[in-house]
Amino acid sequence: MFNIAILGLGTVGSGVYEVIKENNALLKEKTGEDIIVKRILDLREFPGTEWESLLVHDIKEIIEDKDIDVVVETMGGTSPAFEFVRDALLAGKHVTTSNKALVAAHGTELLKIARERNVNFFFEASVGGGIPIIRTLTESYAGEHFKEITGILNGTTNYILTKMDAEGESFEKALATAQDLGYAERNPEADVEGHDTCRKIAILSSLATGKKVNFEEIHTEGITKIDTVDFEYAKHLNTSIKLFGDAKFENDKVFAFVAPVMVESDHPLFMVNDVFNGIMVEGNMLGKSMLYGSGAGKLPTASAVVADIVAIAKNKDGNVSFGWGDKKQEVVDMQETSHRYFVRFMGRDGDFIEKCKTSFRDAKEVYLDGKDEFALITGVMKEKDFLATVKHK
Amino acid sequence: MFNIAILGLGTVGSGVYEVIKENNALLKEKTGEDIIVKRILDLREFPGTEWESLLVHDIKEIIEDKDIDVVVETMGGTSPAFEFVRDALLAGKHVTTSNKALVAAHGTELLKIARERNVNFFFEASVGGGIPIIRTLTESYAGEHFKEITGILNGTTNYILTKMDAEGESFEKALATAQDLGYAERNPEADVEGHDTCRKIAILSSLATGKKVNFEEIHTEGITKIDTVDFEYAKHLNTSIKLFGDAKFENDKVFAFVAPVMVESDHPLFMVNDVFNGIMVEGNMLGKSMLYGSGAGKLPTASAVVADIVAIAKNKDGNVSFGWGDKKQEVVDMQETSHRYFVRFMGRDGDFIEKCKTSFRDAKEVYLDGKDEFALITGVMKEKDFLATVKHK
Repeated sequence: MFNIAILGLGTVGSGVYEVIKENNALLKEKTGEDIIVKRILDLREFPGTEWESLLVHDIKEIIEDKDIDVVVETMGGTSPAFEFVRDALLAGKHVTTSNKALVAAHGTELLKIARERNVNFFFEASVGGGIPIIRTLTESYAGEHFKEITGILNGTTNYILTKMDAEGESFEKALATAQDLGYAERNPEADVEGHDTCRKIAILSSLATGKKVNFEEIHTEGITKIDTVDFEYAKHLNTSIKLFGDAKFENDKVFAFVAPVMVESDHPLFMVNDVFNGIMVEGNMLGKSMLYGSGAGKLPTASAVVADIVAIAKNKDGNVSFGWGDKKQEVVDMQETSHRYFVRFMGRDGDFIEKCKTSFRDAKEVYLDGKDEFALITGVMKEKDFLATVKHK
Repeated sequence: MFNIAILGLGTVGSGVYEVIKENNALLKEKTGEDIIVKRILDLREFPGTEWESLLVHDIKEIIEDKDIDVVVETMGGTSPAFEFVRDALLAGKHVTTSNKALVAAHGTELLKIARERNVNFFFEASVGGGIPIIRTLTESYAGEHFKEITGILNGTTNYILTKMDAEGESFEKALATAQDLGYAERNPEADVEGHDTCRKIAILSSLATGKKVNFEEIHTEGITKIDTVDFEYAKHLNTSIKLFGDAKFENDKVFAFVAPVMVESDHPLFMVNDVFNGIMVEGNMLGKSMLYGSGAGKLPTASAVVADIVAIAKNKDGNVSFGWGDKKQEVVDMQETSHRYFVRFMGRDGDFIEKCKTSFRDAKEVYLDGKDEFALITGVMKEKDFLATVKHK
């Protein structure tokens, strides 16, 4: 018997309940254990449902219950999720979470407690939903020095950008559609401003480096300033615009950002559309590989949580190392990092264009038929130089 | 100290040596062990190389050496690879192999011996090279009932098909190019006739069902009969032709085949070109996900072997279950399975076309400009009915 407590019966929490119920015989076969949901923590009562008899409202009833082996945290947010998870680990319980905000903010500390208590803290569902990126980085690619991780890590923004690309919709209209379909929250800020992607690329960077990456140090731009005209240029250039979370690893430093990027059509992430996620990993031996799938959604995310429960059942007697230690990782200031930039200007004055091409390092100009404007794709420039040059124009 | 013996210093074997050397400090960090290549079994001598002092020519020197913890089998073929691996497991050594022929033919038996001796038999590199499909199926998707696995599992054939598609080359010319580049063997039969893909989809089917899937029961067609005209039709239909290994899982039965398939442009595997591999997995909770990467090549494949070595180091005291037991899995006779077919006919006789459309179950006709022929995409038909209908035309 392997007893589970679920904290928070929202979309993912109820999905975990459903997967455990639906695939129960299979899970017993895989683990040799009867996996049972013994308790659910939620503020609500759910009268008349199958959950009713399992509900508790006080976390103590879970922490102090010696029969509970695994705590599944699917509440979201950092407080009280952090306190609940910390106390569960301190009480010698294994924990799995789908909560990227929790892992990005407190992963280092929670992994340390798990090591000290010889229990497991797993978080496969926190990045990429049903995409097995955490286990792939830590186990399948255990022998790799990572060079770069590039991800489309947020389904909401990817859906909006896909609509803008395919149907020429404005950001506002595509966002409204995404909200109507339940893909975007009423307050979409965490998604559209890139904060969600930022936390996820920070988690992946910590796994890749084995050190604590502070997500607040990662330069983060969202998609709210992207115009339909940008997509016209993108199409003209045989590219599409995607929100990337990107981290390069060089000489013990991390070069990371979250920003919209023009992606060429032969890039493996070009075909990642709608609410799907895709993550490209480059290793020093492996070369490039890519994982694609449902980045969110009730059942795919729940499936990842349940895979963690299976892994915990197989490793219930000891801590499985993620190689994510306590040391702080240096994240290079975005101002000092180099990129190529896409920038638009009004008018088509020949002298001005020539001057711009020079000051933006042999920039390549791009024209759309019938528009009194032009765009440049700059040469490789430091962010600070690019910003200074734009300011002078 | 964790001592390795490599059997066979070919492409993959020398790659394993290189990855262990190149990423040694990292591997120590990940496992807490100094990972050392102590012995190499090969018929050759390699005088003057760094391997020379490690070489042995008699497997007994490895099997009987109590200091060797892990045997890496990268010889290929089933004999003597099978005997060597069996004896290593019986001697209480862990084994990892990149050899799909071995795993497809003897995986069930070798896994049983490994369980009985409480050691590990791992084979991540046997399917998909650097794509972590084995671990993904068995660990990351441990909570899933699988519905279908579809793979582009052979880089050689995918390269040939990509050349035929992109450059209108004949099969023979594309094969010759692949041979010149070292992507295809001088005797290319195992690749181009689909035998390699067959063994790989058999292995994936065994992992998905937990039973022994006999690869000889999987209907296997290669790519040698594909004509440049087929690609003209494929393009006209906005598709490309790829060699799929496919397995569907329904009611405890496996419906599997290896055959060229017209893949629509919105299919996640459409973009898998050149020597790359891609594998799509559909689970009952997960939905669809896809993994993409280098399916072969020295270092990506070696990296997968080294990931197995790391996993062995972390699990050196006990057998990790793959859930692949001894029972035999029923594979449905291809004759009884249903598909849609693409078929070409000479001429454009109206009556004949109408008759064909009926006898091929509401088939859709396709014409290419200026060709005195037509093609049909049939309705869904049983293989045996399709073959009987073709025979009568």
